[in-house]
Amino acid sequence: MSMEQRRVLVIGIGAGDPDQLTLAAVKAMRRTDIFFVVGKGPDKASLTDLRHRMIEEHAQGPYRVVEVEDPSRDRRPMGRTDYADAVQDWRARRGDIFEGLLRDEMKAGETGAFLVWGDPSLYDSTLGILADIEERGSVSAAVEVVPGISSVSTLAARHCIPLNQVGRPVHITPARRLGDVSGSDDGDIVVMLDAHESFADVEGDDVWIYWGAYLGTPDELLVAGPLREVSDRIRQLRSEARSRHGWIMDTYLLRTVEQKAK
Amino acid sequence: MSMEQRRVLVIGIGAGDPDQLTLAAVKAMRRTDIFFVVGKGPDKASLTDLRHRMIEEHAQGPYRVVEVEDPSRDRRPMGRTDYADAVQDWRARRGDIFEGLLRDEMKAGETGAFLVWGDPSLYDSTLGILADIEERGSVSAAVEVVPGISSVSTLAARHCIPLNQVGRPVHITPARRLGDVSGSDDGDIVVMLDAHESFADVEGDDVWIYWGAYLGTPDELLVAGPLREVSDRIRQLRSEARSRHGWIMDTYLLRTVEQKAK
Ligand SMILES: C[S@@+](CC[C@H](N)C(=O)[O-])C[C@H]1O[C@@H](n2cnc3c(N)ncnc32)[C@H](O)[C@@H]1O
Ligand SMILES: C[S@@+](CC[C@H](N)C(=O)[O-])C[C@H]1O[C@@H](n2cnc3c(N)ncnc32)[C@H](O)[C@@H]1O
Repeated sequence: MSMEQRRVLVIGIGAGDPDQLTLAAVKAMRRTDIFFVVGKGPDKASLTDLRHRMIEEHAQGPYRVVEVEDPSRDRRPMGRTDYADAVQDWRARRGDIFEGLLRDEMKAGETGAFLVWGDPSLYDSTLGILADIEERGSVSAAVEVVPGISSVSTLAARHCIPLNQVGRPVHITPARRLGDVSGSDDGDIVVMLDAHESFADVEGDDVWIYWGAYLGTPDELLVAGPLREVSDRIRQLRSEARSRHGWIMDTYLLRTVEQKAK
Repeated sequence: MSMEQRRVLVIGIGAGDPDQLTLAAVKAMRRTDIFFVVGKGPDKASLTDLRHRMIEEHAQGPYRVVEVEDPSRDRRPMGRTDYADAVQDWRARRGDIFEGLLRDEMKAGETGAFLVWGDPSLYDSTLGILADIEERGSVSAAVEVVPGISSVSTLAARHCIPLNQVGRPVHITPARRLGDVSGSDDGDIVVMLDAHESFADVEGDDVWIYWGAYLGTPDELLVAGPLREVSDRIRQLRSEARSRHGWIMDTYLLRTVEQKAK
């Protein structure tokens, strides 16, 4: 037990473009003593590389960088309950690792930072894991979050569109829940975490898609148009890109338009 | 007609904290020749002030600033169709003003910028109006969007929470559509543009609210807890703050939690 608390910064770094860092993120990086960089395996090394480049550019010494391997997650196709279990299990293992980092790598009074892809509030487990650790009670840290530009904001920006139509809701959903969300009202739908080209199953002549992959990076791909017309092109681009890079990150907006295409 | 096009930058400036500007936003401001600052009336002068302070800090001369009065919008209570009409009408008048700005205040080859509150993709009319102008065809401009930190990301960051529960959707809705969105599935709901404390009508013992007003500013207010327990406190804080400032900007997340409060 120490009088001085550990501080943990959860810093959103944007979705691929290093200029998406906010001034607040840069200031937070400057006061960080220890950066935790969570590796995603060799395929996605470029995601980790971006973090290292940001640290080199913005951190102010003395600082340390600790790289950790992400526990691998079971990615077989599965139902909703199995999926939740698999995520829980993976999250618990990640919790053990993070707890070890906070306890063993940081001294009380020091400031550690996790650099989180996009915005830490969207489909990222870091905050949930830190809350789990706090609950376990073995190590305590004051958490501060620096919001980041999400892939969702980046998608809209690159297509020069709003996410919502005037006065209507917007829904953001993991692809596996698209079926529950679509058709529920007149709101637009943003789909993330799509491993199976779920857009191909969406019906309706009046649906437009605004699709983006590797947003914010030099490999960025954009396609927009009536879903019927562009669906095949997106599937082709997707499979080409996936075999070229070994992985793909894509997001899209589905919008039901009235009469005139807009 | 000129060979060189006008360029219009739509720059997200974050939701109140000047450090929420991204490096890309700062770079965009540096290459701006003319800033269009849309006034919101005397009550909300501090919103315009923030833009002026950002311009003074980041723009690089020579540049000009043109201030425009926002056409006032009919704010009487009204049904959904009336509301859509009122918004359309207001948007058409705003379109006329913006068109005049692009045509008369900018020369071909110049770069103009609109500094948009939060993220331009969320409940902001700038992009829609620029698309309307493009369609009218009287003046043409190449539009580029720089995404910003939204009030939604800021809300989540200040409460140190994710917007979504694991594997579930998130819905973002104007308060007047809360009734359509709530109860549609197990997703969390973010409410914006609430003039009438709509949270007070939400039922359920298992609903938590994470509320924030004037997020990112020195006047920030935060309340989190079971809706039943904190609802009255939020209403009180809200009305006090509204009479102190003359206006209020608030956003909140509604989350249905299972068993244990989380
Ligand atoms: C685990 S989530 C993390 C989201 C992140 N926190 C954010 O704010 O963007 C990963 C998903 O985000 C989306 N994504 C993240 N970065 C992206 C990018 N650069 N281009 C396209 N989609 C991206 C994809 O849908 C991907 O499956
Ligand atoms: C016209 S919308 C613009 C939203 C903006 N584009 C964004 O990304 O946050 C205005 C609504 O955003 C929310 N809002 C904007 N700034 C806020 C702040 N600093 N604190 C709380 N809510 C805010 C409120 O719900 C407000 O009614």
